[in-house]
Amino acid sequence: MKYFFKVKSLEDVMALTGEFSPVESETIPVSDAFSRVLAKDLVAPQNMPGFRRATMDGYAVEASSTFGVSESSPAWLDIAGTILMGDIPDFCLEPGQAARISTGGMLPRGADSVVMVEHTELIDESSVEIYKSVAPLQNVIDASEDFEKNEKVLSRGTFIRPQEEGLAAGLGFSQVKAYKVPKVGIISTGDEIIPIKDEPVPGQIRDINSYTLSGFIREAHAIPVLYGIIKDDPGALKHAVEKALGETDMVLISGGSSVGTRDFTVDVLSALPDTRILVHGMSVSPGKPTILARAGKKPVWGLPGQVVSAMVVLKIVVIPFLNKLKGLGKRDQMIRVPAKLTRNVSSAQGRRDFIRVKLVKKENLVLAKPVLGKSGLIRTMVHADGLLEIGDHVEGLEKDTMVDIILL
Amino acid sequence: MKYFFKVKSLEDVMALTGEFSPVESETIPVSDAFSRVLAKDLVAPQNMPGFRRATMDGYAVEASSTFGVSESSPAWLDIAGTILMGDIPDFCLEPGQAARISTGGMLPRGADSVVMVEHTELIDESSVEIYKSVAPLQNVIDASEDFEKNEKVLSRGTFIRPQEEGLAAGLGFSQVKAYKVPKVGIISTGDEIIPIKDEPVPGQIRDINSYTLSGFIREAHAIPVLYGIIKDDPGALKHAVEKALGETDMVLISGGSSVGTRDFTVDVLSALPDTRILVHGMSVSPGKPTILARAGKKPVWGLPGQVVSAMVVLKIVVIPFLNKLKGLGKRDQMIRVPAKLTRNVSSAQGRRDFIRVKLVKKENLVLAKPVLGKSGLIRTMVHADGLLEIGDHVEGLEKDTMVDIILL
Repeated sequence: MKYFFKVKSLEDVMALTGEFSPVESETIPVSDAFSRVLAKDLVAPQNMPGFRRATMDGYAVEASSTFGVSESSPAWLDIAGTILMGDIPDFCLEPGQAARISTGGMLPRGADSVVMVEHTELIDESSVEIYKSVAPLQNVIDASEDFEKNEKVLSRGTFIRPQEEGLAAGLGFSQVKAYKVPKVGIISTGDEIIPIKDEPVPGQIRDINSYTLSGFIREAHAIPVLYGIIKDDPGALKHAVEKALGETDMVLISGGSSVGTRDFTVDVLSALPDTRILVHGMSVSPGKPTILARAGKKPVWGLPGQVVSAMVVLKIVVIPFLNKLKGLGKRDQMIRVPAKLTRNVSSAQGRRDFIRVKLVKKENLVLAKPVLGKSGLIRTMVHADGLLEIGDHVEGLEKDTMVDIILL
Repeated sequence: MKYFFKVKSLEDVMALTGEFSPVESETIPVSDAFSRVLAKDLVAPQNMPGFRRATMDGYAVEASSTFGVSESSPAWLDIAGTILMGDIPDFCLEPGQAARISTGGMLPRGADSVVMVEHTELIDESSVEIYKSVAPLQNVIDASEDFEKNEKVLSRGTFIRPQEEGLAAGLGFSQVKAYKVPKVGIISTGDEIIPIKDEPVPGQIRDINSYTLSGFIREAHAIPVLYGIIKDDPGALKHAVEKALGETDMVLISGGSSVGTRDFTVDVLSALPDTRILVHGMSVSPGKPTILARAGKKPVWGLPGQVVSAMVVLKIVVIPFLNKLKGLGKRDQMIRVPAKLTRNVSSAQGRRDFIRVKLVKKENLVLAKPVLGKSGLIRTMVHADGLLEIGDHVEGLEKDTMVDIILL
């Protein structure tokens, strides 16, 4: 053996995200910002909404004009005017006066609250009865109540959901600075792998991994770039990896999981300039024969060839590295759903197991049913809704244990 | 009042998905299938993997050749050959023989199992010692173990995740039949609404809803089409809705939540040919002033203008209708995360409340912390990770109640 790598724990592998940095940033239209990651803090250039605004249809008043009123002893207020949407009221409200206003309308000076129309009765064109008192700022949004000028509203590293996109737009940012969308090169290897359009003879298998892996890369809001199928030939693999490294931010090589080809994937990676092997085997099942190298600044992965193993390693291990490249901050962790295990599952000590499970809703509970079957069977992933992680020092879990499921 | 609509319950509104049908289908490359919905059952055209395949590196054997062996009394087997990846073995294995094989390799006739290399010792070029017995089919995947020829492997209406894309590719489908991606027209209304590039004067507010709504539409894997901001003018709104109906599969009109404009949205929709108002108000908070019409075969929504209300109604009510248009089957329900409520929350009887919550992981539990603040404040949605649904007949929920959270 030329390499003397110790099989790494999942934590040790994860700690290596620190070896990599986010991709460059760029300025993009805010309308394209959904699913991107903010590359610069967003600071409010003005108050939001910027004026005192009604949240109900009704009458703008000074709250004190309504104090002590009731159904049996309403207040009579003079109507000082009607405020149309988008208008700046050109009058100042005096105590004892009210102004008609719609949801979203701007309160006139002197007004600090809105009485809902349901709690009023119009007497004539110039006066209204108020049956219920309001407190100052009731049924209004104050000028800086949503965001205050110069307040940091979003931090660098924030994943931009629809609400963050809307917030940026609302503050007038027609462009935002976002990290570029990382490109991920995907190479399938193996003498037995054929393009999906070809008819396999016995011994051959169609290239599934290029499709599953690129699906997961898209799901993670990155761009897959396919480099096709490379035979078990070090020269051809080296050429493909170099090409992919030149064009993308991270490279995935799937296959080469048999003893011989595993070695030559490591050989090929070791021979690249400025490249270091960081991981050569990890105590994770499925996924043990995983390889990680750092080629210049870019991660290159050797993923197992088995379809399920490749997907699990991608989801559990590779995506956190992709998130680092994307510039994603801490907040966006993998969401796990608490669920109740429906049967005993066994696990080997000293390794992290990921068990495929189907989730079934039952009354107030989610049940996690282990999906049985070998990790070469894609059907087990098609039937699964999630993955159950079992710790290194756990021999197994008993039926009815509450567990956290990683969604697939 | 010209309209006498009863405010509808959430269930009554949801039942109206039955009024609409999926969009048309089209044939697409399997490489574009991620996030699409299958429009036709997928049937396996052949067995998968199609041949008996090793799942470990080791020696292919007939299991009976290993029965009863142990560390102290190993079996000696003759090596009949080495199977290379992608090869069809040209020999038949006899009892007492073994063949070198790698993970993924094809077993020779006569072999029914694989002994892991770790449980063997190579004696010389022509013989190997076996230390552990195997059962028939151990460490192999049989020819039809993943999928059997003519088996229905995926049903119409399935959301295509990476694993479903890979499965289709693995079965040789270079194209699949999928529902088209629905287009959703988005119209913002309101005299107070201005384009985001403009500087608002007091009384004006930038168009947030076009951005939040289009973000949610993209998140739901559909295509938003923006029709801009329409002033509170029935003629202009009619024109915009007709244009949007001609070009998209569903139309969202946000704003018009004040009494007067609400009426004219209904007026405009009622005046369209072949159009029926299905919902005019629902007992949901936020979201009461929601309008749903059926224009020809297409849903048209009047959403509240308040930013949070518009987002909640989109997420809770509109997306299930979009899923119907997308052709999505039953399986893909909204995922909810069980969580423990951190404080009492009150709720009005007779309506469905949706409370924004922040999720915090604490040991084995997820805590749901209600985010306080008015539904006109977008910050409440930016701080929220999910929505807590409170039933129509519940007056409130106590601290420490276990609740199910809809993720945002």
